Amino acid sequence: MIENAFYTPEVQGAYQLHSLGGFDLEEGGRIPDLRLAYATYGELNAAKDNAILVPTWFSGTHATWEQVYIGPGRALDPTRWFIVVVNQIGNGLSTSPHNTDGGIAMSRFPQVRIGDDVRAQQQLAAELFGIERWALVVGGSMGAQQTYEWAVRFPEQVLRAAPIAGTAQNTPHDFLFTRTLMDAITSDPGWNGGEYRSHTEVADGLRRHADIWAVLGLSTEFWRTGFWRGVELPDVTWSTFEEFQERFVQATFLAMDPNALLTMGWKWQRGDVTRHTDGDLAAALGRITARTFVMPIDEDMFFPPRDCAVEQALIKDSELRVLPSIAGHFGLFGFEPAYLAEVDRNLGELLDTEV
Amino acid sequence: MIENAFYTPEVQGAYQLHSLGGFDLEEGGRIPDLRLAYATYGELNAAKDNAILVPTWFSGTHATWEQVYIGPGRALDPTRWFIVVVNQIGNGLSTSPHNTDGGIAMSRFPQVRIGDDVRAQQQLAAELFGIERWALVVGGSMGAQQTYEWAVRFPEQVLRAAPIAGTAQNTPHDFLFTRTLMDAITSDPGWNGGEYRSHTEVADGLRRHADIWAVLGLSTEFWRTGFWRGVELPDVTWSTFEEFQERFVQATFLAMDPNALLTMGWKWQRGDVTRHTDGDLAAALGRITARTFVMPIDEDMFFPPRDCAVEQALIKDSELRVLPSIAGHFGLFGFEPAYLAEVDRNLGELLDTEV
Repeated sequence: MIENAFYTPEVQGAYQLHSLGGFDLEEGGRIPDLRLAYATYGELNAAKDNAILVPTWFSGTHATWEQVYIGPGRALDPTRWFIVVVNQIGNGLSTSPHNTDGGIAMSRFPQVRIGDDVRAQQQLAAELFGIERWALVVGGSMGAQQTYEWAVRFPEQVLRAAPIAGTAQNTPHDFLFTRTLMDAITSDPGWNGGEYRSHTEVADGLRRHADIWAVLGLSTEFWRTGFWRGVELPDVTWSTFEEFQERFVQATFLAMDPNALLTMGWKWQRGDVTRHTDGDLAAALGRITARTFVMPIDEDMFFPPRDCAVEQALIKDSELRVLPSIAGHFGLFGFEPAYLAEVDRNLGELLDTEV
Repeated sequence: MIENAFYTPEVQGAYQLHSLGGFDLEEGGRIPDLRLAYATYGELNAAKDNAILVPTWFSGTHATWEQVYIGPGRALDPTRWFIVVVNQIGNGLSTSPHNTDGGIAMSRFPQVRIGDDVRAQQQLAAELFGIERWALVVGGSMGAQQTYEWAVRFPEQVLRAAPIAGTAQNTPHDFLFTRTLMDAITSDPGWNGGEYRSHTEVADGLRRHADIWAVLGLSTEFWRTGFWRGVELPDVTWSTFEEFQERFVQATFLAMDPNALLTMGWKWQRGDVTRHTDGDLAAALGRITARTFVMPIDEDMFFPPRDCAVEQALIKDSELRVLPSIAGHFGLFGFEPAYLAEVDRNLGELLDTEV
C-alpha cells in the first residue's frame, strides 16, 4: 500500500466501496478481493427502471462526472434518475496496484480487460441494487469502451447507450498512442519495474506522460487560439502556454499513481468488442439493441469523428451526434458551456426516446 | 567524431561539402569551420536565373528530395532548373555534433537557429555559384520554416516560395510536440548528457522517439485504413501494424544520431519569422514579395492546413494549395502518386508564373 492523497475523499469527494469478493479476470489472473469504488446520485425507483450507469475514463474518477455532468436540470438529473458512477478497476480508487496488499500489489497486479470491468459492474449493480437493466449506459473515452462492451455483451440489459469520444474496437493509432504514454512512465528509472515507494519517484515519467497528453489530448486549435487563457483552476494562474502546461496538465498527472495509469493503459489498448465475435466488427456491433447515440468530439485528435462514424454505421438503432469542443479529447472535462449544452441536449433526447 | 553509417554517401547518395569557415550563430555560439553538405541537379544558366533552393526537413537529407521530388519531367526538372539542395546545419551531414571535433563536439555543440541556416545557405550560394536570387525556394516542414525565413529576411532574393507542410512561426502545439520528441531521447540514460559513444547506446530513446512520430507524423486515417500494407521498402516486409512500426518507423530513426535530432528539434521549436519584426507576424509576412504557394497537407496532425492558412492570409501574393496525403505529415516522403502529382502541378504552375 502506497499513500497517495489524490485517491482520497478529500480530493475525490464522497464515494462508497463495494467488495465483490474473489474475481477471476479474462486474462487468467485473479483479484482476491475486488473492491469497486462507486458513487450514486438520486434514488432508484420501485420499478428499477430509472437507473443510469457511468463507467469512468483513463485517469478519471467519479468526481468529474459529479462536478461536470450530473445535477438538477441537467440531462443526468438526480431528481429523475438513479445514476451510478463506477470507478474502473485499477483507476486508483477501485482495487488498484498501489492500494492493495500482498500477492497482487504493485508490479504483481494482474492484467485487466474492459470486459472485466463490465462484468464487475454488473455484479455490483445486482448485489447492491437489484438492477437488471440500465435506462442508459454513458461514458467518455475508456468509459465509451465500457459502454460498447456493455451493449454488445449484455444487449438485453442496455436500453440506451451513449459512447462519448471513444471506440468499440481500439484503433492501431490509439494502440500506438497509448504505448507512448506508457513508455513515458516505464522509461523512468524511478518507476523501478513498478516497485517505486512513492509516485513522486516517477515524477519525470509522469511529466513526460503529461506532455504527450498535451499534444494529443488537447487540440492544435486549443493551443493556436490560446484557449487555455480562459481555463480556470482554484489557486493557480498561468500567463504563458508553458505555464499552463506545467501548472494544469503536468500537475494533473503528477498527482496520479503510475501503476494505475499503466493498468488502465494496457486495458485501453485492448478494448475490442470483436472478442465476442471472432474479430467480426459488424457482427459484434450488430448485437447491439440499445438505442445508441455515438458522440465523438469534433476536435478529438485520437478518437476522430470519422473513426467513430465507421462503428456507428454498423449499429442498427443509432445516430452520430458530433460534439463541439476546441479542447479536443479533453473537452470531456467540460471547459465549454456549448459542449455541455450539446451533451445535455443529446442525452436528454436519448433519454426521452421510448425504447 | 562518431561513426554512423547512415551519414555516408553509401546511404545518402553523392553530395559535396563546402566550408564556410568560421560562422557566428544568432544565439551567440560559433562554429569554427561550418561545412554544409549539398547536392546540385542540373546546370546553372548564364543569366543565373534558373536556380532553385531546397532546404531540408527535420531528420531529412538531400537524398529524399533527389529520390522523390527531382527528375526529368517533374516540376523540379534538372534539364531546366539548377536545383541546390542544402542539408541543414546539424542534420548529420552538414556540420553536426557527432561529426565534428574539439570544442563543439557532441554535448558542446552550440544552439543553431533557422536564421543561421538561411545565412549559411546564402553564403554558400554566393561563394560557389554567384547566385543572388532564387527562382524558387521550396522546402517541407523545417524546410518550410527555412523557406519562410528566406522570404522574410531576404525578400528581394526570393522570387517564388513554396513552403510545404510547415509554418513561418512555430505554434505552441508544435513546440510541445517537439519537446516530447526530444525528451524521448534525453530521458534515455544511454544518451548520457549527449556524450554517448555510439548512437546505438541511445536505441531505447530513439525507439520511443520513433513511436511518438508514428502517432503524429502519420495520421489516424493512415492507421485506420491500413495504408501501411501498401508501403514498400527493399528487403523488408511487414504483416501487422506493429511490424510496420518496428521495421519502418523505428528502423528509420534508430539509424540516426541522437544529438543531430536534438539540434534540429531545438531549432524547429524556435522557428519564428517575427524575430525580424518584434513579434509582429503580419509585419513579418508582409515583407514577403515572393509569389508564394502555401502548401499544407490535408491530413497533417501538427501542421494542419488551418494553421498554415492563417499565415497564408498575411502574405500579399499568395495562395493556399492544400496537398492530399493520407500519410499526414509523412506524406512528404511521397508514398502516393496523387500527392506527388499535386505537388508537381502546383510547383509547375508557380514556376511558370512571371514575377
